[in-house]
This record gives sequence, structure tokens and C-alpha cells, in this order.
Amino acid sequence: MKITIIGLGLIGGSIAKTLSRRKDNQIFAFDTNKSSISNAIENKSIKGSIESLDDLKKTEYEDSLLILATPPSITVDILKSLDFLFNSSVTITDTTSAKTSLNKILQKFNFPENIIFSHPVAGSHLSGAVNSIDNLFNGKSTILSYHDSAAPLHVNRVMSLWQELGSKVSVLDTELHDQIFAYSSHLPHVVAYALLNTLKEIEQDNLALFSGGGLGEFLRLVSSSPEMWADIFSTNGKNIAFAINDLVKNLNILQNKIANDPESLKDLLSELKAFKESNY
Amino acid sequence: MKITIIGLGLIGGSIAKTLSRRKDNQIFAFDTNKSSISNAIENKSIKGSIESLDDLKKTEYEDSLLILATPPSITVDILKSLDFLFNSSVTITDTTSAKTSLNKILQKFNFPENIIFSHPVAGSHLSGAVNSIDNLFNGKSTILSYHDSAAPLHVNRVMSLWQELGSKVSVLDTELHDQIFAYSSHLPHVVAYALLNTLKEIEQDNLALFSGGGLGEFLRLVSSSPEMWADIFSTNGKNIAFAINDLVKNLNILQNKIANDPESLKDLLSELKAFKESNY
Repeated sequence: MKITIIGLGLIGGSIAKTLSRRKDNQIFAFDTNKSSISNAIENKSIKGSIESLDDLKKTEYEDSLLILATPPSITVDILKSLDFLFNSSVTITDTTSAKTSLNKILQKFNFPENIIFSHPVAGSHLSGAVNSIDNLFNGKSTILSYHDSAAPLHVNRVMSLWQELGSKVSVLDTELHDQIFAYSSHLPHVVAYALLNTLKEIEQDNLALFSGGGLGEFLRLVSSSPEMWADIFSTNGKNIAFAINDLVKNLNILQNKIANDPESLKDLLSELKAFKESNY
Repeated sequence: MKITIIGLGLIGGSIAKTLSRRKDNQIFAFDTNKSSISNAIENKSIKGSIESLDDLKKTEYEDSLLILATPPSITVDILKSLDFLFNSSVTITDTTSAKTSLNKILQKFNFPENIIFSHPVAGSHLSGAVNSIDNLFNGKSTILSYHDSAAPLHVNRVMSLWQELGSKVSVLDTELHDQIFAYSSHLPHVVAYALLNTLKEIEQDNLALFSGGGLGEFLRLVSSSPEMWADIFSTNGKNIAFAINDLVKNLNILQNKIANDPESLKDLLSELKAFKESNY
């Protein structure tokens, strides 16, 4: 199968490394960073590069799979520019964690049947091709989102891609995807930034001496790429605003119970411990 | 050296396990749970038990070390009941993470010279003697807090205790201790509970599928003992209330930048990444 990856960063580079282990996969890539391309050719994770997205018009790309492994706002721009492939035999997917802006483009084109969104819930606080690894998606969750008009052939092609990469695949409606991830993934990142900013403001030296291990692990979220997370936050801003409001409400509930109601505080903490243990 | 540990839970049990490796340490313990005592005698981490705190009046306990390894509010009650040992040759320390309530007792007695507070920043989401381990404090931080009136002999005895347990020891004024820990340790726990309550409220099945690994690690804080954390939150409630207010302010700042100012959002995330990398 012919596979083209746009963007050879952590995600695109890791996809290439895994897929290239199968000889019948012919992997091509496009990246503005020429050294990412030449490194990937050298370590045989890709077969070659394409010069421009227009190359995808060639007949040799018919029935191929195109993976956009770029940050959210760039993915929006690229998807727009690929309208010549809409409803073609080329299956198009992405890897971003916010889908609403992408879905708006599809809406204008009455939902082309060959576009299936993907969100691999895998990553690292390290970014770039240099940190890509060949088992990044193994055992991780990947969420597909697509419209009713999507053709089974294209859905299956994307489903097979993630299964080949070792992911556990599930499907969510596009809007529900963005609502859920605003809470389950984007909110924890917002919280890590807000918490760290709060700690920064107390201007105390050697703060790490005064924190247990769990905090350090959590703050690793802040080591992710600021550009990518500013982009994710902005593209899913409305849902994240609701999530922040809900969190603030729950912080105020706790603050109130701490000040006034130790018994009901203990009950709430017990209830949450039980919820944690059956869900995470 | 004769050492008496009040409370053979995770902390007290772990202290006994490490200290008992040295033959010249004679360790005694007091716990209302008789099986904790008999298990500890069986595995030789303690030499015997005391029947009542009044036993500490005996001359054989002169110049010994008394460690209160009980939760915050129980520690307050026990310290009050130990006034017959204030300004004696017995060194008294504790292991709690909030000191203001304890310090109020000392104030009434004009700060006895033999009481040195300890806060080992070590623990586990598992509690109880059954989970105690003999290297719990090794390489971890322990904070001492004491009044100017504390006698060097007693300070040194407590300092040596934690050094023998492998801790990195530092010293903080009692009030500053509680202010800092409200931010560095208690606030992250409040946040973990509030975040989990927010996720619980969206009533979505299989939530863990939609979250990255960092969140699961952080939510482990919620698996700690609800009784202990309700107690810590209540005993340091005023400082924690300030910390929650500061966090809410920072959440609102992020929410506002996400909605209105993507450039300044990116700058803030970059600044926080740099702060993270030089501090945690």
C-alpha cells in the first residue's frame, strides 16, 4: 500500500518507523524541514519524498492513504488546499486532537466520502522527528471520527492503519470528540499550566523539595510544545472554556467544604477515590 | 538510642523498618491496632510496645526520641496530652504536613525547647503498616520547623534521625512551612480532586481511553487516604483557600488568553515550559 505522510514530526516520524517494517508498505513524505526527510530516507523509514502536494494528483497515488501529521491550525490550511482530492480514491486522515475546525471545511464540501479523522492519544513531552519511536501507538487509544457519508472502504483503510500501528481503535462523533477531549485531555493541560503559574508566582526557591512525586509527573505536561498546545487550546477554545468553568465550580465546592464542612469533605474525597479506582 | 513511635502506619512502620537495621536502636511503639504491633514485633522492626503514653514518664525513657507518626488532627490531640514531657530530656517530633495547629499548642507553653517538627515529603497512595517499606525516606526531602527556643541537642537529634533515614533535610519557619505546602503539595491534591470531579460529572464511559498517561499518574493523588487528606485540608484550610484563589485567577487568565489572545497565550506557555525545566 502506498502511504504519504505530511509532516515528519514526532507523530508522522513514528508512523513511518512502524509502517516501514512491512515491505509492502511504500511510504513517501512531505516536510518543509529537508533534514527530517533525508534522515528518514537514510534510516529507511520512508522510501522517498514528494515535492509538492500537487504530486498527489498523479495516477500513481490513486487508492493510496494520505496522513496529515501536522499541528491543528496547519492541518486546517492543508486540508483546505487538498480539495482536489475530495471524493477521490485517496483516503485522507489526520492526527490532531481537535476536529471542529476541520469539520467545518468538510461541511462546505458536503462531507466528502474519503475523509476520516484520526486522533491517536499518544505523544510525548518531546517533539520532532528526532524523538519519534517505532512503537509510539502500540497499546494506545486512537479515536476515529467521520460523517455518515464516509465510504466503508475509506473507513476500513484508516481503521487498518491504526490497527497495524497497535492502537485500540474507537469511534466518536466529531463534535462529541471535541467536547470530551476538552475535558479529558485539554483541561488537564490547562490545569498543569495554571498550577505551575500559581507555584511560579510564590517566588520560593527549591520548590521541588516541597512537592511529592505525583506533581512532577503531572507538570511534565508543561514540557510539551507551547506552539502546539496554544494551537490546540485555540482551535477547541469554546469547549475548553466550559471545562474551565466546571473545574472552577468544583474548586469552589472543595474550598467551601474545607472551610465549613469537614464531614462532607471526607465523603466527597472517598467518593472520588472510588471513582478513580474504577475508571483510571 | 531509644526511640518510641506513636502510630505504626505507613510512615511510622517505614521509620521502624529502617531504624531497626541498626542494632543500637531500641525501638518501641504504640498503636491502637494490636495486630500492627504484633506484626512489627514478629518482623523485628520494633522491640516492644508501650501500653500507654504515661509509660514515657519512666526514667528509662530519659534522653529518648519520641516520634508522633499519626494524622494531623490526632497529632494535635496527642501533643496536647504530652505536656508532662515538655522541656524534658525526651526529644519530641512529628511527621505531619501542616504545622500551624501544633504550633498553637507550643505557643501556650511558651515554646518548649524539646519539640522539633518534622515533615517527611514522602508517602504513597497506599497507606497502613502493611505497605510500609524500609527505604521510604531515602533520597526524599524532609523539612524541620522549630522555634528559636529549641535546644541544639534536640534539633540535632531530629536532624540525625532523618539523615539516618536517608532524607535531604532542610529547615523552614512553621508559618512559612504551611504557606509553602498549601501551594506546593496541598493545592495539587485539591486540584486532582476537583479535576476528577469535573471529569466524573460529564458521565462519559471509558474516559481513560481519551486521556494521555500524565493524567493517570496525577490522579493517583486521589487514591490517597480520604480521611488523612480531609484532615490535612482542614488543618491548613486558610492557606489552602488563598492558594485556590490564586489558581482560579490563573485559570481565568488562561481562559481569557485562549479566547482572545493566541500570541500572548503562546508566550505564557513558553515561559512556563522554561520555568518547569529549571525547577522540576
